[in-house]
Amino acid sequence: MSEFDLIRDHFCRVGSGRPDVSMGVGDDCALLRVPSGAELAVSIDTLVSGIHFLADCGPEALGHKCLAVGLSDLAAMGAEPAWATLALTVQRSDEAWLTEFSKGFAHLAEAHGVALVGGDTTRGPLTISVQVHGLVPQGKAVRRSGARIGDLVCVSGTLGDAGLALRRLAAGEPLSGYLRGRLEQPAPRVALGSALRGIASAMIDVSDGLAADLGHILAASGVGAEIRLADLPLSPEVSASLASDADWALPLASGDDYELCFCIPERHREQIPELQERLDIRLSIVGRIMPGSGLRCALEDGSIWQSGAPGYDHFSHEN
Amino acid sequence: MSEFDLIRDHFCRVGSGRPDVSMGVGDDCALLRVPSGAELAVSIDTLVSGIHFLADCGPEALGHKCLAVGLSDLAAMGAEPAWATLALTVQRSDEAWLTEFSKGFAHLAEAHGVALVGGDTTRGPLTISVQVHGLVPQGKAVRRSGARIGDLVCVSGTLGDAGLALRRLAAGEPLSGYLRGRLEQPAPRVALGSALRGIASAMIDVSDGLAADLGHILAASGVGAEIRLADLPLSPEVSASLASDADWALPLASGDDYELCFCIPERHREQIPELQERLDIRLSIVGRIMPGSGLRCALEDGSIWQSGAPGYDHFSHEN
Repeated sequence: MSEFDLIRDHFCRVGSGRPDVSMGVGDDCALLRVPSGAELAVSIDTLVSGIHFLADCGPEALGHKCLAVGLSDLAAMGAEPAWATLALTVQRSDEAWLTEFSKGFAHLAEAHGVALVGGDTTRGPLTISVQVHGLVPQGKAVRRSGARIGDLVCVSGTLGDAGLALRRLAAGEPLSGYLRGRLEQPAPRVALGSALRGIASAMIDVSDGLAADLGHILAASGVGAEIRLADLPLSPEVSASLASDADWALPLASGDDYELCFCIPERHREQIPELQERLDIRLSIVGRIMPGSGLRCALEDGSIWQSGAPGYDHFSHEN
Repeated sequence: MSEFDLIRDHFCRVGSGRPDVSMGVGDDCALLRVPSGAELAVSIDTLVSGIHFLADCGPEALGHKCLAVGLSDLAAMGAEPAWATLALTVQRSDEAWLTEFSKGFAHLAEAHGVALVGGDTTRGPLTISVQVHGLVPQGKAVRRSGARIGDLVCVSGTLGDAGLALRRLAAGEPLSGYLRGRLEQPAPRVALGSALRGIASAMIDVSDGLAADLGHILAASGVGAEIRLADLPLSPEVSASLASDADWALPLASGDDYELCFCIPERHREQIPELQERLDIRLSIVGRIMPGSGLRCALEDGSIWQSGAPGYDHFSHEN
């Protein structure tokens, strides 16, 4: 079996049951049907070994993560995931590695009904680009630019877990199963993103740290915000770390959270606990959109916390 | 200006005038409108330094080529190019390099009305993945699987030029402007691909050599073919090379031609000269679809040419 066949064998069956795929893997292009009344949402992301993941990251976790990053972008628009393409550059064709990688990819794809419809596999330094394609009712996508003065600023899940995991790994310290899972197997908030269509005024996924990503909402919307640090949702491990060093950069400016940050008008406030219960996901109101520009982070005594680090920016990370 | 801004500045204006782009670069996803009655055709391809292009390839040529490869895939389905995304991994943010790269990309994008709607720029070994998105009337895409016994096998342009260019470069020999252009600035046959909808029974782009790519048509269609080597379209330089070494692997099994190979029923034979004149592109009938399987290459004396090399396969190259 050639390397070509090997790779096709691993990937071309992922999510092959979607009726909107006229042609998946196996021709010059995939052919896909977008229902009338829907807009197509697309996002491409690259993971590079040593930059976006540690060289010892297991292939199954990597297969999960490279798709999760894209699904998180779809979630942030309120789009429903549909299809993915995979551009995989690997140094050599290692069957055991490919098997584990495709298992991680396929497991998450199937959980979200995503079909892998195309790809390219090349030889070179380990680099993984995934493009995701989602569908959203025309005009209903939630953009970064809709935040209005007075809106509540909310976040899902907890912040800083992946950042703490990376910090521990860099220091050679042991990692709890919880932190490893948060770093390597983030759960894209797809159901929440869809549920927030018509409720959220603006949304973004938190991939570069809340400060930077909320900052994108503020810049796109032409507003400012104040958040209360005491209201940031933190896991027990991140809380313990903060109790010892008071370094708010951990939940504010470390990357890879893959939670959603969204703004909602005050009149929708009561939907937050309803959504939290229905979707079984922690939702926290952490601040409010204000006139002006930029983000202020208020400590419990009312003073403003300052940090030099505006976010975790691995060179740049866009769209 | 941060690296982030620098890159955005170079790329986000490419083809920004398309009315079917609700949101381009600047949010978590691009938002695109596919007209009802159209299918979406997508293809992703990766170029890796040292594998798909020589390390001394100029950035403008590289910007052209990384998009041309994808447009050639759209052409091979008969799709009209619409949008592209770019995942660019570079070792460092070099403004001069980015300027030239984006110039090559933008020039070709504008020539085909393609909007760059999203991307990701990361730090790492130079690797470029481009996904192209095209539109084709529902059910009208030309697939690999439609070739029927008796159909004529045709190719556009000339074969083996890029292969000869690579061979010369590898030997340290000088390169004519013609050969360099064919290697570094291939012209995707987009207009031809569209014009062949309703005429061609099967089509593929010749990226891995005619033998391998026509082989994909034969396998997908469940047929065989015989081509006459004397009818292969060759440039004067490739002809001269063949006259000296009789190595038919050059036009048959070297990569990067980015021509189209297509099959047409005998009844459409008279359309070939018409298309050739209307589109000002050389079209050649090189053989015929036959019962059985596999490709036979007939020399002028009627004997069958045999080669060990089934095609130029840089690890694998799919969809």
